[in-house]
Amino acid sequence: MNKHVIINDVGPRDGLQNQPRVLEIHQRVELINALVAAGVPEIEVGAFVSPKAVPAMAGTDKVFAQLKGDTVFSALIPNMRGYQSAKEAGVPLSSLVVAVSNTMNEKNIGMNTDTALVACQGVFAQAQQDNSEVQAYVATAWECPFEGEVSQADVIDVSARLLAIGAKRIVVADTIGAANPANVTSLMNALVEKFGAERFACHFHDTRAMGLANVYAALTAGVRRFDASIAGLGGCPFAPGASGNVATEDVVMMVEQMGFVTGIDMKKLLTASDLAIQLTGTAKGGKAKLWIEKYLS
Amino acid sequence: MNKHVIINDVGPRDGLQNQPRVLEIHQRVELINALVAAGVPEIEVGAFVSPKAVPAMAGTDKVFAQLKGDTVFSALIPNMRGYQSAKEAGVPLSSLVVAVSNTMNEKNIGMNTDTALVACQGVFAQAQQDNSEVQAYVATAWECPFEGEVSQADVIDVSARLLAIGAKRIVVADTIGAANPANVTSLMNALVEKFGAERFACHFHDTRAMGLANVYAALTAGVRRFDASIAGLGGCPFAPGASGNVATEDVVMMVEQMGFVTGIDMKKLLTASDLAIQLTGTAKGGKAKLWIEKYLS
Repeated sequence: MNKHVIINDVGPRDGLQNQPRVLEIHQRVELINALVAAGVPEIEVGAFVSPKAVPAMAGTDKVFAQLKGDTVFSALIPNMRGYQSAKEAGVPLSSLVVAVSNTMNEKNIGMNTDTALVACQGVFAQAQQDNSEVQAYVATAWECPFEGEVSQADVIDVSARLLAIGAKRIVVADTIGAANPANVTSLMNALVEKFGAERFACHFHDTRAMGLANVYAALTAGVRRFDASIAGLGGCPFAPGASGNVATEDVVMMVEQMGFVTGIDMKKLLTASDLAIQLTGTAKGGKAKLWIEKYLS
Repeated sequence: MNKHVIINDVGPRDGLQNQPRVLEIHQRVELINALVAAGVPEIEVGAFVSPKAVPAMAGTDKVFAQLKGDTVFSALIPNMRGYQSAKEAGVPLSSLVVAVSNTMNEKNIGMNTDTALVACQGVFAQAQQDNSEVQAYVATAWECPFEGEVSQADVIDVSARLLAIGAKRIVVADTIGAANPANVTSLMNALVEKFGAERFACHFHDTRAMGLANVYAALTAGVRRFDASIAGLGGCPFAPGASGNVATEDVVMMVEQMGFVTGIDMKKLLTASDLAIQLTGTAKGGKAKLWIEKYLS
């Protein structure tokens, strides 16, 4: 059994994106560097989106310009224009987002799923020409805030189409934190069986306290790549006051105690967590920080 | 597959036991009644221990005297003397606690495991004569704060002996919140295979954020009985500031969203949770409370 779990820390983008405090470029770089120092193998460093719409992500090109080393840095892009900006900035891996349900796509990006996939296809084709990589987030993969429960067959269909048109990887995302371990096991078993575990990552929220349980469920299905956010940074956009992303330090603690290997230095990760808490004033930190002495002894 | 999950709420004992505020008898009854009204099928209402040692549990007989209905009420007992007090008070189900490791038993109850089991045997024999029931907590079943990792073979051995000498049920307890979903699955698979799922319940702490993940892992092994504490009441005695019990409302939310049935009314359970928060000033409440509207729609 593959014992290597790869963590992608989305705190610097997904976490920072909706914070009351807009961090300075140098603060975003400081946070990312703390994650790099901890050995986090993949980090989502920002987004190439309208600075008016998302001021917290303005200057992602400047952030990226200051980063060094062989961490896999990525950025969120909404469309071809965002891809071009990412390419100009030298970012090697971009992430597109497509929801499963038509209503979610209509509300979010003003087009239905089919049209969204056509738009994605253009970006994948361009990336292939540029020798660049684009992965696809399949959002609201378990439940849509508008349409309710999402059918597994639809997720499989959208995933199949994305892989066929050139997505490097599919990140199956529980956008509103509605998945439970049973339907996570079920969906990820189906996807892994059909396409192979290496084509997938999972992105879970802890909104209903099931974040780690869902990570575990996905692990049993063979998934080895997980998004997480340092210090649990980032709320749930659909439920004010609700928690969002699973905390990186808690995911790392769980998988390592289960016998998996992440390559991450927990002590340095907790330093990064403290920094995230200090910089944002909102991040709470995971439960791992209470165990640092025990964990390290 | 058995879809019926039975929750035993330990908030009124395990939760209240170490609170800064010692609740009045009528407040403890009020909390228990709120749980009864929510349809919680089993409730640990108190402990028959020295009132000097555990002032919060003094008067458990008076608490029990005010309770009505067919909820399964239980009480913690340390020994034969506690059992006699419980019997006098009319409590139909008592819980003894035995750790797996010798050191934990020596530190906690001043005797090694073998001697502790002999003491238990006396209580079971008396209970059988009295047509009363006694269950056994197997504490520190995954990790002991003194001896470290606990061997699965030792847990199976202690469980076998307890069942042989008359324990109604074994509650496998992760006393310091150190278990992870892999070793939960492993241990509970072994116990369920050997003795049958109906002989076991599990008691998990959320100290390292793995509480619900461990509940899920035990569910996959066939376990259908879980301790939980309303509003997550109760800290971890070994890590100041660390959380303790899994919150009842979050366990119920997860298992019901997975398709299991608990017989519990979530709206009334959240009322009980609010009451626990208000009475103790320390309970935090689970994440279910943020979802009450969504959950009920």
